[in-house]
Amino acid sequence: MNPGLQYIQIQRNKSTATTSLEDVVAVEAPLEIQIQHSSENRAKSISVTMRTPGNDIDLALGFLFTEGLIKDYHQVKKAFPFGENRVVVQLNEGETIALENSERNFYTTSSCGVCGKSSIEAIQTISQFQINRSRVPSEGVLFGLKKTLEKQQSLFSLTGGIHAAALFNLKGEIEIVQEDVGRHNALDKLIGEAFQKQLLPLDDRILLLSGRASFELVQKGIMAGIGTIVAVGAPSSLAVELAREHNQTLIGFLKQDSFNIYSRSLDENVT
Amino acid sequence: MNPGLQYIQIQRNKSTATTSLEDVVAVEAPLEIQIQHSSENRAKSISVTMRTPGNDIDLALGFLFTEGLIKDYHQVKKAFPFGENRVVVQLNEGETIALENSERNFYTTSSCGVCGKSSIEAIQTISQFQINRSRVPSEGVLFGLKKTLEKQQSLFSLTGGIHAAALFNLKGEIEIVQEDVGRHNALDKLIGEAFQKQLLPLDDRILLLSGRASFELVQKGIMAGIGTIVAVGAPSSLAVELAREHNQTLIGFLKQDSFNIYSRSLDENVT
Repeated sequence: MNPGLQYIQIQRNKSTATTSLEDVVAVEAPLEIQIQHSSENRAKSISVTMRTPGNDIDLALGFLFTEGLIKDYHQVKKAFPFGENRVVVQLNEGETIALENSERNFYTTSSCGVCGKSSIEAIQTISQFQINRSRVPSEGVLFGLKKTLEKQQSLFSLTGGIHAAALFNLKGEIEIVQEDVGRHNALDKLIGEAFQKQLLPLDDRILLLSGRASFELVQKGIMAGIGTIVAVGAPSSLAVELAREHNQTLIGFLKQDSFNIYSRSLDENVT
Repeated sequence: MNPGLQYIQIQRNKSTATTSLEDVVAVEAPLEIQIQHSSENRAKSISVTMRTPGNDIDLALGFLFTEGLIKDYHQVKKAFPFGENRVVVQLNEGETIALENSERNFYTTSSCGVCGKSSIEAIQTISQFQINRSRVPSEGVLFGLKKTLEKQQSLFSLTGGIHAAALFNLKGEIEIVQEDVGRHNALDKLIGEAFQKQLLPLDDRILLLSGRASFELVQKGIMAGIGTIVAVGAPSSLAVELAREHNQTLIGFLKQDSFNIYSRSLDENVT
């Protein structure tokens, strides 16, 4: 029984005839992420996110990493579920995290107040990794990504309501697939898994997103140093600006025989 | 010049040939929402959301309303932009809002801790409106909604990266259309516009969502008392539970000749 799926009774109206049937929907349920310092008896609540249950520890660690709260694998003593909808992350002795660094404060800290520029500058300050300009995937590899992902996707695709994030190496071999009703959660799960496998930074990897590329997703990708992001859908203006600023290759509208390159060409920088 | 659109230079790879061209992307930029009590000199920052510029006052008021912070149109003295990426909402004398009521606290307040049930119960407590069970749209009206929306959509559809939320009456006549890179923003803009037009509660209206129906979107719909939600995509488990609990009609996968009814049939309750 997959905890991410739920079977429910629905009615289907087709050509004006209504029938009752059992259908499957993607589960959405809150997850509370807590941090516990070694000097403290109680864990502190950091965030509640609506997610699809499954790989909750990946999600918690990925979220804390992409928010800039945890910088390194060796800060973490242990991460474990506490009940169905809570993950506690215990820090090693001497490790403290500054909650005021969280993404929520990214936008308003810089000199121009609230604007895209301040958002971008804040990420530049906070990300640990530089993307290496020399590593770009070949055209052939890009065209193969979607088919490879489709072979790997779980039952979730049944529901039609799930976002996928997949990590590939430059040969187009798939390394990680994560799925969630929330696209930011799918990516946090992926980065959390890579974090635990100590694969970061991911400058020689390709991230495939099943939907659109928003600022938030590109931001998370840059926190993990991902070299190339490929979205099946459209990018936003600020996603493009952020990718260009970081020499990240950003590709959108990946189809069977075409794609758009929004940041860096496969040979040279397009900006 | 539409502030929600930006023209940028990109490269398109089609059948292995690469060409440079100008393309249009949806703008994404942060909006800070501030509240000012009449007794205070300074406005207080409530939230920063990444949105597509345009109809920012609708967005700010819709956000404050669906978060349960503002309950009534008469609490608001004035709402105005302050710079490009900030909206200030001034309250009338004697009006105060309790910031601890915001949605962020919905999830952890109830007896079962963090779980779907507590999320649903919290909404029940906080929503002002009951959905009237007798008002459901006809099949014919439902099949016409998408075509009506397509005729009304702005240039945004060019970008392929925009979510739409549209409000219809039970005859299928369109009343409000709002668009944004964020689907929650598109809905907040719609509810903010209805709020200013003093149309709430919307129990005799149909909300059409261009994408999926998540818990968050159904929750916002229930805060505004929307009788019927129709999504082009899939609903999540918790979205279905929430709609059923509130006698809201929830329809998903709206296609040319079929749709799924997840909560209430058009004649009777399916739960």
